[in-house]
Amino acid sequence: MDAATNVTEQAPIEKPLALMNFSKRVMLKNVVMQSDGGISLVGQRLVIGGWVKSSRELKKEPLQPPVVIDNVVEPKVVSCAEVLQSRIPFFKSIIKVFGGGDHHIRNKLTAVVKQPQLYTSILQINDGSCIPNLQVLVDSTLVPPSQVMPSGVCILIEGILQQQSVQGKQVIELKAEKIVHLGTVDQDKYPLSKKRVPLDMLRDNSAHFRPRTKTVASVMRIRNSLSQSTHTFFQNHGFVEVQVPIITTTDTEGSSKKFQVTTLLETGHRIDKKPRDSLRNLMDAVEEKSKKVEELQRNESNKEAFHAARQDLQQTTELASQFERTRKRRSTEMIIEVPKLNFSEDYFSHKTFLTVSGRLHLESYACALGNVYSFGPRFQAEKTDSTKSMPEMWMVELEMAFSHIEDAIECADTLLKFMCTSVLNNCAEDIMFLSKRVDKTLVDRLQKMTMNSSEKISYTQAVDILKKVTQKKFHVQVQWGNPLTEEHESYLADIEFKRPVVIYNHPKEIRPFYARLNNDGKTVASFDVVVPKVGTLIKGSQNEERLATLNGRMEELGLRGNEYEWCKDLRRHGTVKHSGFSLVFDRLVLYATGLNDVRDAVPFPRSCGKAFN
Amino acid sequence: MDAATNVTEQAPIEKPLALMNFSKRVMLKNVVMQSDGGISLVGQRLVIGGWVKSSRELKKEPLQPPVVIDNVVEPKVVSCAEVLQSRIPFFKSIIKVFGGGDHHIRNKLTAVVKQPQLYTSILQINDGSCIPNLQVLVDSTLVPPSQVMPSGVCILIEGILQQQSVQGKQVIELKAEKIVHLGTVDQDKYPLSKKRVPLDMLRDNSAHFRPRTKTVASVMRIRNSLSQSTHTFFQNHGFVEVQVPIITTTDTEGSSKKFQVTTLLETGHRIDKKPRDSLRNLMDAVEEKSKKVEELQRNESNKEAFHAARQDLQQTTELASQFERTRKRRSTEMIIEVPKLNFSEDYFSHKTFLTVSGRLHLESYACALGNVYSFGPRFQAEKTDSTKSMPEMWMVELEMAFSHIEDAIECADTLLKFMCTSVLNNCAEDIMFLSKRVDKTLVDRLQKMTMNSSEKISYTQAVDILKKVTQKKFHVQVQWGNPLTEEHESYLADIEFKRPVVIYNHPKEIRPFYARLNNDGKTVASFDVVVPKVGTLIKGSQNEERLATLNGRMEELGLRGNEYEWCKDLRRHGTVKHSGFSLVFDRLVLYATGLNDVRDAVPFPRSCGKAFN
Repeated sequence: MDAATNVTEQAPIEKPLALMNFSKRVMLKNVVMQSDGGISLVGQRLVIGGWVKSSRELKKEPLQPPVVIDNVVEPKVVSCAEVLQSRIPFFKSIIKVFGGGDHHIRNKLTAVVKQPQLYTSILQINDGSCIPNLQVLVDSTLVPPSQVMPSGVCILIEGILQQQSVQGKQVIELKAEKIVHLGTVDQDKYPLSKKRVPLDMLRDNSAHFRPRTKTVASVMRIRNSLSQSTHTFFQNHGFVEVQVPIITTTDTEGSSKKFQVTTLLETGHRIDKKPRDSLRNLMDAVEEKSKKVEELQRNESNKEAFHAARQDLQQTTELASQFERTRKRRSTEMIIEVPKLNFSEDYFSHKTFLTVSGRLHLESYACALGNVYSFGPRFQAEKTDSTKSMPEMWMVELEMAFSHIEDAIECADTLLKFMCTSVLNNCAEDIMFLSKRVDKTLVDRLQKMTMNSSEKISYTQAVDILKKVTQKKFHVQVQWGNPLTEEHESYLADIEFKRPVVIYNHPKEIRPFYARLNNDGKTVASFDVVVPKVGTLIKGSQNEERLATLNGRMEELGLRGNEYEWCKDLRRHGTVKHSGFSLVFDRLVLYATGLNDVRDAVPFPRSCGKAFN
Repeated sequence: MDAATNVTEQAPIEKPLALMNFSKRVMLKNVVMQSDGGISLVGQRLVIGGWVKSSRELKKEPLQPPVVIDNVVEPKVVSCAEVLQSRIPFFKSIIKVFGGGDHHIRNKLTAVVKQPQLYTSILQINDGSCIPNLQVLVDSTLVPPSQVMPSGVCILIEGILQQQSVQGKQVIELKAEKIVHLGTVDQDKYPLSKKRVPLDMLRDNSAHFRPRTKTVASVMRIRNSLSQSTHTFFQNHGFVEVQVPIITTTDTEGSSKKFQVTTLLETGHRIDKKPRDSLRNLMDAVEEKSKKVEELQRNESNKEAFHAARQDLQQTTELASQFERTRKRRSTEMIIEVPKLNFSEDYFSHKTFLTVSGRLHLESYACALGNVYSFGPRFQAEKTDSTKSMPEMWMVELEMAFSHIEDAIECADTLLKFMCTSVLNNCAEDIMFLSKRVDKTLVDRLQKMTMNSSEKISYTQAVDILKKVTQKKFHVQVQWGNPLTEEHESYLADIEFKRPVVIYNHPKEIRPFYARLNNDGKTVASFDVVVPKVGTLIKGSQNEERLATLNGRMEELGLRGNEYEWCKDLRRHGTVKHSGFSLVFDRLVLYATGLNDVRDAVPFPRSCGKAFN
C-alpha cells in the first residue's frame, strides 16, 4: 500500500493502459514494449496474467535497518526466528500435510521459518504476447514463494507498476498487491521445468507444452503474421478466397498416396464374400471335384472330360494345400488380403480421400470468379521421415483465369517478396530473437528475398548446370527426365545462385496431368520455386485448357475414371487459359524462422507413426 | 477503327484503367462500378475477359442507307446475297464440317448468308468481380455470332469503351476490336444453357458450374468478405491464429460420430486372426472336444469333468451349426463383423480420425499465448440430411486464457456485430442483389444484428418459456435435461424474441465433458447463440480448469482413455480459467446471404451419400 501511494505521488497517470477486451487484464506487450521502456506507466494499477518463466528469491530488507551478520541480511526479530526454528519438527509435519515433497522441505522450511514479510519472489512473467518478460515482485505475505516460483506456474495478479527496484532486464516492474488466480505446477512431471529442452524432444509427447517455450511462441507469432499477410496479399490483388473441400473423390496429382476417409471400420458392415480367401471353400471344392472325377472315371465314356476334371482337381488340391501351409506357418496372425469392403455402404456411398491439392477445385471457381485462392490443410500418405514434409501440411493455392505461366511466376515472386517484407516489418522482435537463438543468417536471407529477383532457368538448363558440377558428388546422378532431388535443388539455390531459383518447363512425365503441354510435346508449362535452406516452396503450372490435349495426357497416364469428368467439363464449356500454384505454407514458416525441421513450424505436427493428440 | 477515332476526339483519356496484376486484363468491377457509370472512361482501349451471361443479335445498319423491304434491313449489295443463297447446299456442308448441329443450321445459315458486316452480337459479359455485366459489341466480321453468343462462352477481348449505342443497363459498352481468346460451349451438354436452374439441381453433379450463376457468385464474394472480417476481428483484438490439426486421436466432443482416416484399406495388410469367426475353426473345435468327451467317458473316473466337457461340446456344436445356417441363408454376401484390422500397421500406428472440434487443441496454445483462434474445416459423420449441417463444415474457434463465460459471450456478441457491419459495408451490392433475389428480410436482419444486443436467458428460463407456449405444438416436447430441438430454438429466436438469443448454463449431461461445472453441480458454464432463421450459430463454454472436477466429469462419462492425458496436463501445470466458443462459419454465410440451405453457402458441399468431386 505504501508503494502505491509513493508512486502515485511520483508520476501522475496520464493515459491508463487499456484492458484487453473479453479478458480483464492488460496485455503484457503494452506494458513492456513501450518506446520509453514503460517509465511513463509508473504508478498505474493494473491486472496482468501470464506464466512464470523463471524466478528467484530475495531476502527482503526489513523496514528498520537489519543486523548484518556475515554479509547475510538477517531478520531483526531474531527471537521470533529462534522460536520458529525450535519447532522445526512441527512445521515439517504441517508442510507434509500441505503436500510438499520431501526433497522440497528444506527450501520450504527456510521460507516458513524466516517468512513473515521477509522474502520477495521475483518472477519473470510472460503472457505470450511478446518476447520480453515483465518482472513481478510478490511478497511472501501474499503467497508462499514455493507456490509461485516454479516455472510454468500461471498467475493472475493485480499490482502497481514501479521503477525497477531489483536488477532485471526491464525499466519497470510490477509490485503485486493481490493474487487473483494461481495455477500451480507439478514440478516432478512438468517437462519444461528444466531449462531449454530441445525442440525435437518436446515435439511429440509434449506438443501441448511447446508454445510455452520462447522459440515456439515466437514461431507461432510469425506464423500468425504470415497467415495474415497471405490474406492481405490476395485481397489486395482482387482474389476471392474459396475453401476447397477436404474430403474428395478426386486425385488431383493423379498418383499420390492418399488417406482414405471412412466410417465402415467402426461397426459391423456388409462385406462381399470372397470364396477364394476361404480354406473351407477350397476344401469343399476339392471334395466336389473329387466326386466328379470319380464319376467320370466310372463312366469311362468321355475320356477327355475325365482328364480335364482330374487336372482341375489337381490344381484345386494344390491351391488348398498351399493355403493350408501358409496358414500353419503363421500361427498367431496371417497375411491375407483386406476383405473387399462394400463402399456403397460407406458414408459417401463410395471411396473418399483427404485432398492432396485443391488446384482442380479452384479451377472451377477461377472459371467464374477470375482470380481465386485457398488456404487450408492438404494431405499425403507418403511414408517418409523428412524434415521438410509432413502428412498434413497447410498450403496456399491459387488459380488465375486469363493468365499464362509467366503471370503465375510473377505472382509467386511478388507474393514471396511481400511475405518477407511483411514479416520483417511486423515481427521484427521475433525475427531478431530467432536469428540470435536459431539461425544467424535469417535476417540476411529474408532481406535478400525482398530486394533481389529470383533466378529463372529451365529444367533443361538446370540439368546442364548440375551435370557440369565437379566440386560435389550427388547421391543421385542428375538425368534429364528424372525429378531433381532435394540435393540438386539445394545445390542450385544454396551454392550456384545463392538465392531463390525458378525452374520451369519440366518433362511432362514428372508433372501432374493437368500441366499444359508445350509445343515440343515433351515438356509442360510448369515451374518450381526453390529457395535456399528450405528447398521447394512453390510448385505451379499453366494448366491445360485444350480438351483434346488433356484427354491425350490422361490417356497416357491411364487416368480413365469418371472422377475427372467435372474437370474435363471446365474445358468443354467456356475454357480459358489459366495458371496457378501451390505454396507450402509450413515451409514458408520454416524459411521465415530459420528452423531446420518443418515439424517445429506447425502447432501440432504429424508424421508417419506419430499423431498423439 | 472509326469508333476509336471518334471517341478519342470526344473525351481525352485522363487516367487509363490499371491492368490487373498477373493477368493482362482490366477487372470488370473497375469498368462498370464507376460512380459516373464509367462515362469518364469512354475512349479507353482495354482488354477484358469474362463469360457470356446472355446475348442477342442485331442487324447492323450498313454505312449507306439500306434498301428497306418488308421492314427488314437488307444488305445493299443484293447480288452478293443472291449468289450466296444460290449456294445454300454448299454452305450447309461447310457448316456441318465445322460441327454445327442440324437444329442450329437455320440460324447459322441466315448468319452466313447475310453476314459480311451485317450483324453485331451484343454480349453481356461478366468476370466474377461484380454483379453488373459489361455490354460488349462484337462484329460478325471478327467472329461468327454462333461462336460467341451461347451463354457460358469464355472470351478475352481487346476493345474500346464507348457510350452505350444499343439499349442496355449500363452507360458505357465495349466495342470489340480483337478477339484474343475464345472458349466455346457445347450447348447441348451445358447445364446452365437454360436460364435460372434451381440451386438444388446444380448442387451435386454440377457443383463445378455453380459459381457461374449470379447467386452463387454473390454468395462466394460475401463468404470471402466474411472470412476476411473474421481474421480482421481477431487480429484487431490481439488473438494469434493457430492451425489446429485435422487428423487427430482426440475426440473433443467425447461422443461424436467421426470419420476414420486410414491407409490400411488400399493394399494387403496384416490382420489379427479371429478364430471365432471361422467355421473351419469351430468344426476343428467340435472334433477336438468330441475326442475329449469320449476320452473322459472311457475313463469314468471324473464324472464332473465329463459333464462339463459334454456341455462345452454341446455349446460349440450349436455355435457351429448356427454359423453354418447363417452362411447358407445368405448365398452371395454375408453380414459379418469387420475383421480386426491391425491399426498398429496403419499410417500413424493407431486409429486416427478427422477432427470434430479444435477447442482442446486451442486450449494448449491459449495456455501459452493467451488469446488464440482457429479457422478451418471440422467433421462429423452424423447420417442426417439437414439443411443446416454437413459432414464437413468450416468453423471459427477461439480460446481465451484468463476469461470467464461472460467474457466469451461478450466476445461472441461483438464478433457477430462486427461481421454483420462489415458485410453490409463491404458487400452492399451483393447483399442488395440477394435481398431481391433470395430473401427480402436479409438487410433488415443484418442491420438489426448490428444495432441490438442479443437476449440472454438461462437454459432453465428457456425451458420455462417453451413450456408455457400454447400457440404452437412442438414435435418434441420440451423437458429440462434434454437438448432443445431446432424447433424450440427457432421459436425463441424467430417468434418469442425476434433477435439473437444467448442460452446459457445447460445441464451437464448435454454438453461436452470440458465445460466448467457450475456450483449447483447440475449445470455447466456453457452457452449457445441462436439466431433467427438459421438457428444455432455459436456453441461455447467456460472450460473446466480444476483437474479434480474434470476427472470426475470424465469418469461419469466413461472417458478413461489415455488420449485425454495431454488435456489433463494443461490442468496439472499452470492451469488457468479460460473460455471460448465455436462459430459455424458456413451458417454465418447462410445468415448473411438469406439462403435456406447451407449446402448452397459452401464451394463444394458434401452430404451423406454425396461427394462427387
